[in-house]
Amino acid sequence: MTVSLGEVRAAAERIAGRVRRTPVVDVAPGLTFKLELLQHTGSFKPRGAFNRLLTALENGELGGQGLVTASGGNAGLAAAYAARELGVPARIFVPVTAPAPKVAKLRRLKAEVVQAGTEYAEAYQAALDARDKSGALLLHAYDHPEVVAGQGTVGLELLEQAGTFDTVLVAVGGGGLIAGIATAIGDHARVIGVEPELAPTLHHALDAGQPVDGPVGGVAADSLGARRLGDLAFEAVRRHTVESLLVGEESIVAARKELWRDHHLAVEHGAAVAYAALASGVYKPAGGERIVVVVCGANTDPSTLT
Amino acid sequence: MTVSLGEVRAAAERIAGRVRRTPVVDVAPGLTFKLELLQHTGSFKPRGAFNRLLTALENGELGGQGLVTASGGNAGLAAAYAARELGVPARIFVPVTAPAPKVAKLRRLKAEVVQAGTEYAEAYQAALDARDKSGALLLHAYDHPEVVAGQGTVGLELLEQAGTFDTVLVAVGGGGLIAGIATAIGDHARVIGVEPELAPTLHHALDAGQPVDGPVGGVAADSLGARRLGDLAFEAVRRHTVESLLVGEESIVAARKELWRDHHLAVEHGAAVAYAALASGVYKPAGGERIVVVVCGANTDPSTLT
Repeated sequence: MTVSLGEVRAAAERIAGRVRRTPVVDVAPGLTFKLELLQHTGSFKPRGAFNRLLTALENGELGGQGLVTASGGNAGLAAAYAARELGVPARIFVPVTAPAPKVAKLRRLKAEVVQAGTEYAEAYQAALDARDKSGALLLHAYDHPEVVAGQGTVGLELLEQAGTFDTVLVAVGGGGLIAGIATAIGDHARVIGVEPELAPTLHHALDAGQPVDGPVGGVAADSLGARRLGDLAFEAVRRHTVESLLVGEESIVAARKELWRDHHLAVEHGAAVAYAALASGVYKPAGGERIVVVVCGANTDPSTLT
Repeated sequence: MTVSLGEVRAAAERIAGRVRRTPVVDVAPGLTFKLELLQHTGSFKPRGAFNRLLTALENGELGGQGLVTASGGNAGLAAAYAARELGVPARIFVPVTAPAPKVAKLRRLKAEVVQAGTEYAEAYQAALDARDKSGALLLHAYDHPEVVAGQGTVGLELLEQAGTFDTVLVAVGGGGLIAGIATAIGDHARVIGVEPELAPTLHHALDAGQPVDGPVGGVAADSLGARRLGDLAFEAVRRHTVESLLVGEESIVAARKELWRDHHLAVEHGAAVAYAALASGVYKPAGGERIVVVVCGANTDPSTLT
């Protein structure tokens, strides 16, 4: 199963007006940020959520039971937001250990929050059970063609906004964003995945020749904490020969603080990962190389920025 | 004395490459933000500082003594940054009461910080004395033609970036930004000044028929705390029939929190003032009206955002 450029283009048309066309800013010679943290709900995830839901509505696959999903993070917020905007009921499963502020955010978006199990695997299983019982639509956080195609609209915008560039640095969790961007950008630029050393799904998949389960931890685990790369993502990164760079915990923390101090962007740790490759010197640009860094999420406690 | 559109255009050419062309983002139908908080040092002030310093360099007015100014806030940061970039020595006067983090920020930018007096009037007098003794260039925070022309480049960018719009909302302190924007935008759109009720320099000036000293207070006083509107600003706002709207303290605090919660922008109170007019309903747009809000500063303690 693959996602095509045509599907990304169709997604862009489908979700236009529902998502923000987030701006780019040239922050230094040869360095451009794509400010996807300014998207609705503070991450790129509404792009995929809208594309999935709108497609389901077009195809008559979305009944009165609405959607179910399992996430207290960016995917859950995006699902709740998109569902509310489209008038679709949303039931979101989180473990009983989910922090109260996350649950409150979901409820503010009118989602029904169901606490089930003590970790996400159990909450996810409860979401699957609910789908099987009720016929609700399951919104997967990353490994679904319409989700990947939706996230890929970030790449289409970049081609229009950022002029000619050589390289895009993108953080990788489940891989929906990088798969979509690689598909959208094709041969126009090199796409490089950046991952925390403590949650390197792409790295493990490239090593093993297929997505494999791996340990998940570190400061960025709340947004990049997928246990394994999605199958669609693996297919896309192999087709587009996407590399993986690893960054350490200290580099991520330092990059996040630098993004605030020097660029006035308040980002979550996962969204500092791509910039960390550059700031820490793990990625060394060639002379004259033009680089885009996707800054992809702002769901953070701002009191930890300084 | 007036500032002309030609001077703003000349400023844009002069400072190109030194300042960031900050992006705009459409956040809702008919509502666009100009993200000037992403400027170097976190406010629009480097535009005016570069224009003033580069003009002085062109004219041979800037000797080995460099510049002096009095500000521990955005103007001081901008002066220190522009001076460092241009290799000009910067001596910045602040009262002994200036908070240590502000002084540290200035020193990080390689400025010499001189603590003099217990309030800004005394620090300013010390800067004047230093200029008179040493022949250093005085960089005024707002009431200087090249400073106003530099800030006006925000308006030129808006005309290029934001398409057709009806109204621009801009916060007012000393008035350098709104004077520059009004000059740049001319008849293309209505320019409206928004001020805290507790520091309404433009409001007082329009009432009195000239800039007059007034009390300064409230949550936004650190960035909008000028005692009176600049003469150049008064001339510009009269020529362009700029109105003043007043917003209360609670509206400013609420708007700042909303900018973080809904738009993922961490701004100082002064930079929430323009948006507060809209969010509080003090400014009620007509049906179909297209509005730009200038979000002009990010020098804030992010731990106070939630």
